[in-house]
Amino acid sequence: MENNVIFYLVPAASLLALFFAFYFFRQMIRQSEGTARMREIALYVRKGAMAYLKQQYKVVGIVFIVLSVFFAILAYGFGVQNGWVPFAFLTGGFFSGLAGFIGMKTATYASARTACAAEKSLNSGLKVAFRSGAVMGLTVVGLGLLDISIWYLILNHFVEATASQKLTAITTTMLTFGMGASTQALFARVGGGIYTKAADVGADLVGKVEAGIPEDDARNPATIADNVGDNVGDVAGMGADLYESYCGSILATAALGASAFYGNPDVQLKGVFAPMLIAAVGIILSLIGIFMVRTKENVGMRQLLKSLGLGVNFSSMLIVLATFGILWLLGIPNWVGISCSVVVGLLAGIVIGQSTEYYTSHSYRPTRKIAKSSETGPATVIISGIGTGLVSTAIPVVTISVAVILAYLSAIGFDVRNMLTGENLSMGLYGIGIAAVGMLSTLGITLATDAYGPIADNAGGNAQMSGLDATVRERTDMLDALGNTTAATGKGFAIGSAALTALALLASYIEEIKIALVRAGELTIDVAGRAVDVATASIPDFMEYYQVNLMNPNVLAGMFIGAMMSFLFCGLTMNAVGRAAQKMVEEVRRQFSQIKGILTGEATPDYARCVEISTRGAQHEMLPSSLMAIAVPVIVGFIFGVSGVLGLLIGSLSSGFVLAVFMANAGGAWDNAKKYVEEGNLGGKGSECHKATVVGDTVGDPFKDTSGPSLNILIKLMSMVSIVVAGLTVAWHLL
Amino acid sequence: MENNVIFYLVPAASLLALFFAFYFFRQMIRQSEGTARMREIALYVRKGAMAYLKQQYKVVGIVFIVLSVFFAILAYGFGVQNGWVPFAFLTGGFFSGLAGFIGMKTATYASARTACAAEKSLNSGLKVAFRSGAVMGLTVVGLGLLDISIWYLILNHFVEATASQKLTAITTTMLTFGMGASTQALFARVGGGIYTKAADVGADLVGKVEAGIPEDDARNPATIADNVGDNVGDVAGMGADLYESYCGSILATAALGASAFYGNPDVQLKGVFAPMLIAAVGIILSLIGIFMVRTKENVGMRQLLKSLGLGVNFSSMLIVLATFGILWLLGIPNWVGISCSVVVGLLAGIVIGQSTEYYTSHSYRPTRKIAKSSETGPATVIISGIGTGLVSTAIPVVTISVAVILAYLSAIGFDVRNMLTGENLSMGLYGIGIAAVGMLSTLGITLATDAYGPIADNAGGNAQMSGLDATVRERTDMLDALGNTTAATGKGFAIGSAALTALALLASYIEEIKIALVRAGELTIDVAGRAVDVATASIPDFMEYYQVNLMNPNVLAGMFIGAMMSFLFCGLTMNAVGRAAQKMVEEVRRQFSQIKGILTGEATPDYARCVEISTRGAQHEMLPSSLMAIAVPVIVGFIFGVSGVLGLLIGSLSSGFVLAVFMANAGGAWDNAKKYVEEGNLGGKGSECHKATVVGDTVGDPFKDTSGPSLNILIKLMSMVSIVVAGLTVAWHLL
Repeated sequence: MENNVIFYLVPAASLLALFFAFYFFRQMIRQSEGTARMREIALYVRKGAMAYLKQQYKVVGIVFIVLSVFFAILAYGFGVQNGWVPFAFLTGGFFSGLAGFIGMKTATYASARTACAAEKSLNSGLKVAFRSGAVMGLTVVGLGLLDISIWYLILNHFVEATASQKLTAITTTMLTFGMGASTQALFARVGGGIYTKAADVGADLVGKVEAGIPEDDARNPATIADNVGDNVGDVAGMGADLYESYCGSILATAALGASAFYGNPDVQLKGVFAPMLIAAVGIILSLIGIFMVRTKENVGMRQLLKSLGLGVNFSSMLIVLATFGILWLLGIPNWVGISCSVVVGLLAGIVIGQSTEYYTSHSYRPTRKIAKSSETGPATVIISGIGTGLVSTAIPVVTISVAVILAYLSAIGFDVRNMLTGENLSMGLYGIGIAAVGMLSTLGITLATDAYGPIADNAGGNAQMSGLDATVRERTDMLDALGNTTAATGKGFAIGSAALTALALLASYIEEIKIALVRAGELTIDVAGRAVDVATASIPDFMEYYQVNLMNPNVLAGMFIGAMMSFLFCGLTMNAVGRAAQKMVEEVRRQFSQIKGILTGEATPDYARCVEISTRGAQHEMLPSSLMAIAVPVIVGFIFGVSGVLGLLIGSLSSGFVLAVFMANAGGAWDNAKKYVEEGNLGGKGSECHKATVVGDTVGDPFKDTSGPSLNILIKLMSMVSIVVAGLTVAWHLL
Repeated sequence: MENNVIFYLVPAASLLALFFAFYFFRQMIRQSEGTARMREIALYVRKGAMAYLKQQYKVVGIVFIVLSVFFAILAYGFGVQNGWVPFAFLTGGFFSGLAGFIGMKTATYASARTACAAEKSLNSGLKVAFRSGAVMGLTVVGLGLLDISIWYLILNHFVEATASQKLTAITTTMLTFGMGASTQALFARVGGGIYTKAADVGADLVGKVEAGIPEDDARNPATIADNVGDNVGDVAGMGADLYESYCGSILATAALGASAFYGNPDVQLKGVFAPMLIAAVGIILSLIGIFMVRTKENVGMRQLLKSLGLGVNFSSMLIVLATFGILWLLGIPNWVGISCSVVVGLLAGIVIGQSTEYYTSHSYRPTRKIAKSSETGPATVIISGIGTGLVSTAIPVVTISVAVILAYLSAIGFDVRNMLTGENLSMGLYGIGIAAVGMLSTLGITLATDAYGPIADNAGGNAQMSGLDATVRERTDMLDALGNTTAATGKGFAIGSAALTALALLASYIEEIKIALVRAGELTIDVAGRAVDVATASIPDFMEYYQVNLMNPNVLAGMFIGAMMSFLFCGLTMNAVGRAAQKMVEEVRRQFSQIKGILTGEATPDYARCVEISTRGAQHEMLPSSLMAIAVPVIVGFIFGVSGVLGLLIGSLSSGFVLAVFMANAGGAWDNAKKYVEEGNLGGKGSECHKATVVGDTVGDPFKDTSGPSLNILIKLMSMVSIVVAGLTVAWHLL
């Protein structure tokens, strides 16, 4: 069959990505790692990071084993789940962890090399850092498509059912490995986020504020932990996070494809392949984009920015054309409309990215006003930061709302009547899902621009601690700033796609409910007095059957709890950071007072002790919030049934999305308000204004690096958990 | 007709409340206002407060006239609304404003008198302050029932329709005056909140922190504005707020009664009267409770607390028995079950109140941990306060979710199957509504315990500025603290009832849609292929007809926007406080530097200028956020239609409720963490820890006194606006 041949493009693109990831890694390793001192510092950081990852994976491994056994019991003991679930779940977690591991290994090897290259020129520094970031980007997309390809081939070989039912069974089963990826990503984000912010806050509060030594000074006992934190939080955490987003969007859309074109196996297969093929072509375009990022020696910041922007924009624009081409070649019905859905998604991502940029960059009024409010002390900095963050939610939310409607309408040929009756709901949601896939398809390059920031940051830390010339630090700071600017679009895509993917997952939940009903022997459902065949029942039929409307008390209770979940989750992670930071502060104070000669540089601080405190704190603190995210959908399903679960998911999606934007933007704005003052405005470094903005930055740290980014994963994970335990919910529930 | 006679209990109770309000007012006025200096200070505050209210009512008056004209055009020009709407809207606003005015007038007369009485003994002070608080409580409930009675009698006389349709028409029309009350309440809360916090933050930052003079010191130019602020924010704002809640719950439940017992005019009338009668009996119980609050001279704090608690608990418990009695006497079907719904509501209120107490009182761990985190500076105080506030949302939300289900099930006789099919939805929602009425029925006394806090606070300010003995200040501080403790239950009731009322209003929205459809000539709707008569169609029928399910893109877009609205609204109000406070800080600094001799007490500061700045700031800043709350439901209705509006309302309700709890609790916890340090812990007043907790308190001010409490009104106002413009939405919409 012709279509099956086309499918092999997917594993091929995946292997291509992995090959180039390896190629760039080798290239980076060949660079000089600099002086003995630089190598020593890098080794400290690398050891600390690896020790953390080892510990983290041990804990997460236990969680995975327990959950797999639970799923195995559900599948083999009670028969409320298919038997592939435990295995798919494990591989999702494994590949996600692997992506984080490779990314972090690369980053810890790259930092000293970037510093060394930056000694030569800004451009050399950029090359090493950016190519190392590309290793991460390509690893994530490569492993993602590899896992998808392998599971598709396995399930396609073993699952036996009629053609249409087979694809539905395959795609919903594959969502299980999405759940594995999401679970591991949540642990990585939360654990890494707590680690990095505990170390950061601890190092800043005692080192910078109390002892008055500069950032990344080797005399600060927490400085190695701080640099390790950048790697485990910003690199490994982000890698796992985006692996989860990438796979999630493709898998959810594939499942929707199976449902939108149900009954016509040939077209259905095309609908399932389309998101995978778009992702595969996205890899090729990303690779071309990455190679385009190169400049002549001795160019300015402006030129570098242009070069980076060129690569990213090239890939994003070409993916639009490629989508039209792929859908046309596949011969999917209404291929023009569905392609336009992708355009809608990309435009929405760009608008969200621009709005993020406006609210968080100190080139614009909002952040400057936060900086200005430091004239009346830290309290007004906090008030105006929170105010700005809250207001900044408006544009992204309105954008996503409009994008949802437009992507939907576009996919069903702008038939408003049809949208209102919900006749063609799966098709409309397919449009929404494929818009998310479009936004993430060039992740290979957008993640590269995201991940090279922390690498440059670490290079700066290495330069500082190794006592390199101040110009090196200036150059790495410039690279870091450059990364922040180009990362805006990437962030817009990540946030927007999370919301769209979560919506697509809701439809998959209904699909899984269908399968669970059939498995439980319920072949028809009662829709307003008519008996409707479960296999051919539409989503609106299920909405009617389960009374999933806004006046059902079960739905309302679920929605309240869902809205609260996002808040509670953020509260738990914020408190966790607070507690872990407290312990770090006490340890750093203890070392300053008990180990004589630290501040004069005569004695070496006990770095390892600080690393250990952060590691233990993160491990200890990440469990309650993460396990809660897994347990609550199961509990709500058990008490309130299917309608309660849908309420829960929508409640957590709507409030969680807004909360995530608020936290990310408030945190980003505080960070840049501080940088604005540090650039010499309002009295500059050391002034009262600076101290006030440092308070804002410290508060913003867990906002933007722990709680905020974890929320995007939380939303999707709760959906995936609900999908995986749908059989359980259908079989047993109280109300 | 017997039932019509019973109705006259309602206006009778209303007049009784107003009579005793007047009686307590006269009693208070007869007390001595103290020395010339005390009278002078009180006069300053009174003048400032009245000047503000005059200005405020002028602006709000213009808004009301514009909106009334708009409604008149809709009604008389386009025929999409009934002709009573503009008038009912105006009276709602008028009575709400009147309640605020009387409460504030009383409070400004009471402060010096309370201080003077507190010179004698703690008990005397309590009596004056508490009885003055009771004036406010009784005025609110008296005016509320008066307005309800008058409108019921007018509409009952003029509206012509079949018996069942008549009551539906009357009760939904009466909701319009609820909208008037909510609109005025939102302006009062937002304007008052901005006023008081701008003055407070301004006075604290320059006076306390920079100049180092104590709170309420007469040398601080902003101190009069600060005391005025307590009156316009905490007294007038709270009065209007609770007037709105009180009327809203009764009106929404009456409308549900008309719908739940539709088709049986006799029972229907009972269903409409029941909430009004419960409120009427609540007034009598409140009065008894108020008279119970009296202690012997020279008793301790413990005894006072017991006395206050006795009055409140007596009323709350007896209202349960009274409800059983009223519903039994009326002979409402399933009167036991519906009465149990009230018990559920009261229990939920108590649980929420206790949880508020736990998270915000410094007798418990959470607030002490926030205080402890001050050892590492203001940043950790903010992080742990936000963390605690976020976590504190869990108990109230779970409680409300459980209460919704139980109140619903109880009202329909615990028939789970029936709940799931939504057959008897109006009846279940009636149970939810009547639970809210039960929670607010003893508002006469609970508001008295709430309102006397600010009066005691102001008395303390007066004592300080008049140079009275320090023991007087100590006593007023004790009274204030006492008020905070007893207010917890009242707050729990206010928060819980807001959520329940908002749910009840959703049902009223559907009723109004019915009426609008009939007016537009659409007599049948298409429910899953069947033509159903609009007049007899059930709520689930409408859910099906409009596809108000969780997968409809219109609903989803509405929900996203609704969730965002709460955040945006808080952001706008936070920023408004920030800007107004900034201006106040500049003015106070200017006076300190330009008017020589202020700090030595030789020159009098220009109090009036600060009052003017706060007034102008509040007027200027309250408009955008409040007008947005009115405009957005109209716009969403125009674009997304009925299903979009329902999504909007549920989205703003679920996220707004959680956000409101977060803001109130975080703000309360910061406040008490500061007080904990001021009581001598962690270094006490003036220590570094104290400074750090002052930052937390300042951030918490707009949280708990501006943005947080306004959210409860916002949620209901958006529902009421949607109800009032339902005709417009049905007639014209894009999607």
